[in-house]
Amino acid sequence: MIIILKENADAAQFDALKDWLTKQNVTLHISEGIQQTIIGLIGDTSHIDLDIIKQFDIVDDVKRIQEPFKNANRKFHPLDTVVQVGSGGVKVGGGGFAVIAGPCSVESEEQIIGIAEAVKKSGANMLRGGAFKPRTSPYSFQGLRAEGLKLLLKAKKATGLPIVTELMDLSQLDLFADVDVIQIGARNMQNFELLKQIGKCDKPILLKRGLANTYQELLMSAEYIMASGNQNVILCERGIRTFETYTRNTLDISAIPALKTLSHLPVIIDPSHAAGIARFVAPLSLAAAAAGADGIIVEVHNNPSCALCDGAQSITPPVFDDLMEKIRHILPFRCQIKA
Amino acid sequence: MIIILKENADAAQFDALKDWLTKQNVTLHISEGIQQTIIGLIGDTSHIDLDIIKQFDIVDDVKRIQEPFKNANRKFHPLDTVVQVGSGGVKVGGGGFAVIAGPCSVESEEQIIGIAEAVKKSGANMLRGGAFKPRTSPYSFQGLRAEGLKLLLKAKKATGLPIVTELMDLSQLDLFADVDVIQIGARNMQNFELLKQIGKCDKPILLKRGLANTYQELLMSAEYIMASGNQNVILCERGIRTFETYTRNTLDISAIPALKTLSHLPVIIDPSHAAGIARFVAPLSLAAAAAGADGIIVEVHNNPSCALCDGAQSITPPVFDDLMEKIRHILPFRCQIKA
Amino acid sequence: MIIILKENADAAQFDALKDWLTKQNVTLHISEGIQQTIIGLIGDTSHIDLDIIKQFDIVDDVKRIQEPFKNANRKFHPLDTVVQVGSGGVKVGGGGFAVIAGPCSVESEEQIIGIAEAVKKSGANMLRGGAFKPRTSPYSFQGLRAEGLKLLLKAKKATGLPIVTELMDLSQLDLFADVDVIQIGARNMQNFELLKQIGKCDKPILLKRGLANTYQELLMSAEYIMASGNQNVILCERGIRTFETYTRNTLDISAIPALKTLSHLPVIIDPSHAAGIARFVAPLSLAAAAAGADGIIVEVHNNPSCALCDGAQSITPPVFDDLMEKIRHILPFRCQIKA
Amino acid sequence: MIIILKENADAAQFDALKDWLTKQNVTLHISEGIQQTIIGLIGDTSHIDLDIIKQFDIVDDVKRIQEPFKNANRKFHPLDTVVQVGSGGVKVGGGGFAVIAGPCSVESEEQIIGIAEAVKKSGANMLRGGAFKPRTSPYSFQGLRAEGLKLLLKAKKATGLPIVTELMDLSQLDLFADVDVIQIGARNMQNFELLKQIGKCDKPILLKRGLANTYQELLMSAEYIMASGNQNVILCERGIRTFETYTRNTLDISAIPALKTLSHLPVIIDPSHAAGIARFVAPLSLAAAAAGADGIIVEVHNNPSCALCDGAQSITPPVFDDLMEKIRHILPFRCQIKA
Repeated sequence: MIIILKENADAAQFDALKDWLTKQNVTLHISEGIQQTIIGLIGDTSHIDLDIIKQFDIVDDVKRIQEPFKNANRKFHPLDTVVQVGSGGVKVGGGGFAVIAGPCSVESEEQIIGIAEAVKKSGANMLRGGAFKPRTSPYSFQGLRAEGLKLLLKAKKATGLPIVTELMDLSQLDLFADVDVIQIGARNMQNFELLKQIGKCDKPILLKRGLANTYQELLMSAEYIMASGNQNVILCERGIRTFETYTRNTLDISAIPALKTLSHLPVIIDPSHAAGIARFVAPLSLAAAAAGADGIIVEVHNNPSCALCDGAQSITPPVFDDLMEKIRHILPFRCQIKA
Repeated sequence: MIIILKENADAAQFDALKDWLTKQNVTLHISEGIQQTIIGLIGDTSHIDLDIIKQFDIVDDVKRIQEPFKNANRKFHPLDTVVQVGSGGVKVGGGGFAVIAGPCSVESEEQIIGIAEAVKKSGANMLRGGAFKPRTSPYSFQGLRAEGLKLLLKAKKATGLPIVTELMDLSQLDLFADVDVIQIGARNMQNFELLKQIGKCDKPILLKRGLANTYQELLMSAEYIMASGNQNVILCERGIRTFETYTRNTLDISAIPALKTLSHLPVIIDPSHAAGIARFVAPLSLAAAAAGADGIIVEVHNNPSCALCDGAQSITPPVFDDLMEKIRHILPFRCQIKA
Repeated sequence: MIIILKENADAAQFDALKDWLTKQNVTLHISEGIQQTIIGLIGDTSHIDLDIIKQFDIVDDVKRIQEPFKNANRKFHPLDTVVQVGSGGVKVGGGGFAVIAGPCSVESEEQIIGIAEAVKKSGANMLRGGAFKPRTSPYSFQGLRAEGLKLLLKAKKATGLPIVTELMDLSQLDLFADVDVIQIGARNMQNFELLKQIGKCDKPILLKRGLANTYQELLMSAEYIMASGNQNVILCERGIRTFETYTRNTLDISAIPALKTLSHLPVIIDPSHAAGIARFVAPLSLAAAAAGADGIIVEVHNNPSCALCDGAQSITPPVFDDLMEKIRHILPFRCQIKA
Repeated sequence: MIIILKENADAAQFDALKDWLTKQNVTLHISEGIQQTIIGLIGDTSHIDLDIIKQFDIVDDVKRIQEPFKNANRKFHPLDTVVQVGSGGVKVGGGGFAVIAGPCSVESEEQIIGIAEAVKKSGANMLRGGAFKPRTSPYSFQGLRAEGLKLLLKAKKATGLPIVTELMDLSQLDLFADVDVIQIGARNMQNFELLKQIGKCDKPILLKRGLANTYQELLMSAEYIMASGNQNVILCERGIRTFETYTRNTLDISAIPALKTLSHLPVIIDPSHAAGIARFVAPLSLAAAAAGADGIIVEVHNNPSCALCDGAQSITPPVFDDLMEKIRHILPFRCQIKA
């Protein structure tokens, strides 16, 4: 961390600042220029609150050099984290390509088992399906909730696919005992109380990037989970909000090399929510595979015209099957991002 | 709502669509052009899920004409809502100008009572102060929490000022029994489970706009609260995320006329979090007053250099006093937005 | 186009509006509902100015159904445009994959010929190089200008590669007589006087998307060129400006399926300027190839540490060679977007 | 400027970097930490190209401390610049409040003189009106062009108001000999060739901020003009592009204190283009006055329903008159931003 002082900084305040900094367990390296004095902090600065330093009147600017996240930082953990999912040997990260597929919402036993069987046959290794649904409008379908979770577990039993589903509030946590991967949605990425609590369980967490959150903020949210003890975090880029409204959001494909440079955690892509357009799912999935993602999470529905939500962005099982075939051909030639 | 069909739409699918629409309690008005058929829906469409309509293969596009919010909509409630705060006659909306002031975080009894007395003397009519603090980093100060709430209540007792403080999670709700206004922070604006629950209490809710949320999404979140029974919602613009990084966020001053055109709910401005720069608080507060806001929520700290968080954006009591003086002169000439 | 009138619209004004609309050579289809009247315009509305309609007091809202671009619209030209470059048979669009490579700036004869030979050997089929450089600061290197163009032509002669370079102002046009593809940079995408003039020549134009421009605006700028007579337009996505600052801009990979759905023009990707980080060039290029782009334009420099501008985003010839090898393997399995 | 080196930086490269830096006429201050070496540059760094430094392999990051603009920088010119307009004593900056009003487009002699007389009577001190119009669509009205300029000059003669109008291309410059203030539109803010040339004349330049440009980029564009010799630059905030689409753009009201902190140049606000909604013009204008702007540029039209472009955002002379009355009351109590 570098602190730039204002010109002609008051000596007493300078002493007060040095005093405060020394208490933070860092070593100070002071460069007194003719016009400006610069303080370099040497040591671990991840715990230091930038805002407090800015409050000192004599401080002109503060710039971090070291990232403020530690558990999630590749600098301290150069090797890729490989997240183990369920008991059947499914892994995310470390060179493989995880494919999580399924409907936006669980609608019925027949629907979820039917889709689970179809996507498994095409090569998916996890099943997704929403039971608790975050919807912009209170008048929209809110998911089958507890009943939806039961149907997901039936589909897991029928196919052996581990299940991934979204937790919206801590009060629902007990219901998630047999869920394999807990998804934290984009709108909850900075629900810090929730992050702290799920950090106390040992299930893999699929953490989606918020619509207007930076890579660093996503990694700080992962840090909340990891600092509470749970190291099994899978990062997910699902589109950010920009001025372009033709697509629902803008898939930030650079998040793949960026997050994998900054962190050792696996990174997957959600092309369905990013675009909101079914025919864009295949090109964006292939782009993700080629760019080095550790997997994708894709909405597949046997009858998109009847889906209770987000049908417009779901692909059909035959389209998914064709996509999987192309992905298999691309994977050997994709980019691999390492430390 | 207007539905535009694809060219040469299949007749059977057209019938299926008409059938589904009729069940939604709306009347259809069909215009069959040479190339394109357009369906107009007449009646209340606020409960109709746009996404489901888009799933029909024959649908090219759907456009809302009526807004999807109802309780919050000025069209159905032309008169300004006036929110009553506490039992001392403080009001928000309807022509007055509410001033909520206080420190970012509650730090000690002496601090919070001292600031409360100072801001009251300058003309503030509510006290703010954070007990539970949402912080990007797990390593930053998280607030005094339950202890902070107790200190706020002491300051309320000492000064008579109603108190406004943030609720981060439903598990904290019982502690908020004596709080006058519950604040829902920007990061929780779309925490729908939380919105539903606080909609069941009858306290005023100060709902902050999310960093990347549209006016309509803010009003849909207000709708969640109102649909659960609580009509006492105060909207708050606190800056949105843009490409400009000189200020922490970009204060969207147009939110004042926009929200007051769309809704009857009061609209206040938070200049402190929007800019993140103490010397911008006065110009932005004056702008808010001139543009017709129903109030402001401002961070005031007796010793910004020692504040435990966000000191860089807090103004001192003398600066606040000067600001209040200017506001009083501007108010008679400000803009009034009506239906 | 659909026009939604305000409730209880004045009859005289309604007549005036109908009168004005009829003069625009469109047929009106009027649906008078109980509360609201809707006018549908049937026929070619691309020439109708939305803003003029909004000026009529009785108009509540106007929504386009038909896109406002015509020459660039795939609906009217379903087949892919194939742009012929130079006289050597190089093509962009229609199923191939064009690779334009070279340094950010032309620096010397040795440099440009050396790089041209290297990229040709690896499989590039066009040479890029900046002679006139748009720089944010007046104090930064502005390019070798006319001298740079001469060196590019020498490299063309030496290698046979057609050359692509940026035109910044009409006053430079005469110097571009032997340039094969004229590039219009992102900052000039809406320099409408420039677009009109280059629309009068018949050279291929590489039109870069502005940093904050929508797909529709990019296509409207293409329309300016095409309406002036030049149909040889190549669209280029080069990153948009978002809140994320880790990368210089955010590559909008969805622009590939989106632009190819909306238009018949070829679409290429510039991963170098989008990310501004050399090690992201390969993953983004592979993503572009997989998602169905018609080509890429990549910065390659034999000695990035000495480049006079943008060295930080240039890859070396060996990295480029390895990238080309991977692209060749991916192309057979990529996505193909058709009408 | 601070340069942070990678860990274990190669000694030969370190020497090469020091060598290059020394040639830039700055003094180096090197802090060798245990893990990381930091180089501080002391002296004028505004001419140093950040990108070149980033090219050195051993460089991890570079951060500017000093702003890269010099002529426009308040640090070097603490006193407000006051721009003299025309020969009649109109001034912009330095404590006054300039009001530029008039129609979006010049349409006829009667229209422009009529509006000029009306706005003068209400207190405007300059007349605006578009002759050359930048339009997104080639099929939209492009302005009366040379003929429009003639009509503006007639209105100037009739009322004595100095005129402000937009220059789109250098080829039009000769026609602007009698124009008082040349406007450079948002889309040309980074048309660097144009900036260089208009920097050679001595007329006041009204420079509008681009839709996606930062404060620093706006000031760098002012720097282009000033470095060419013309110090009479008026900055104009006219809304930036964000995710919110209810308003055409988002007025960044914080640009007033921000630009006036960074620069000594006057700052005015364009509420008409920012919002694109006529009824928002008054609240945004009052906000601008209260926040300390040096003036506003407002669209006023005697018959907005017939305006050939942008009528939807024009206010009528009576609304303008009422606005001017309110502004006069607010000005004595507004914020004044000083160095």
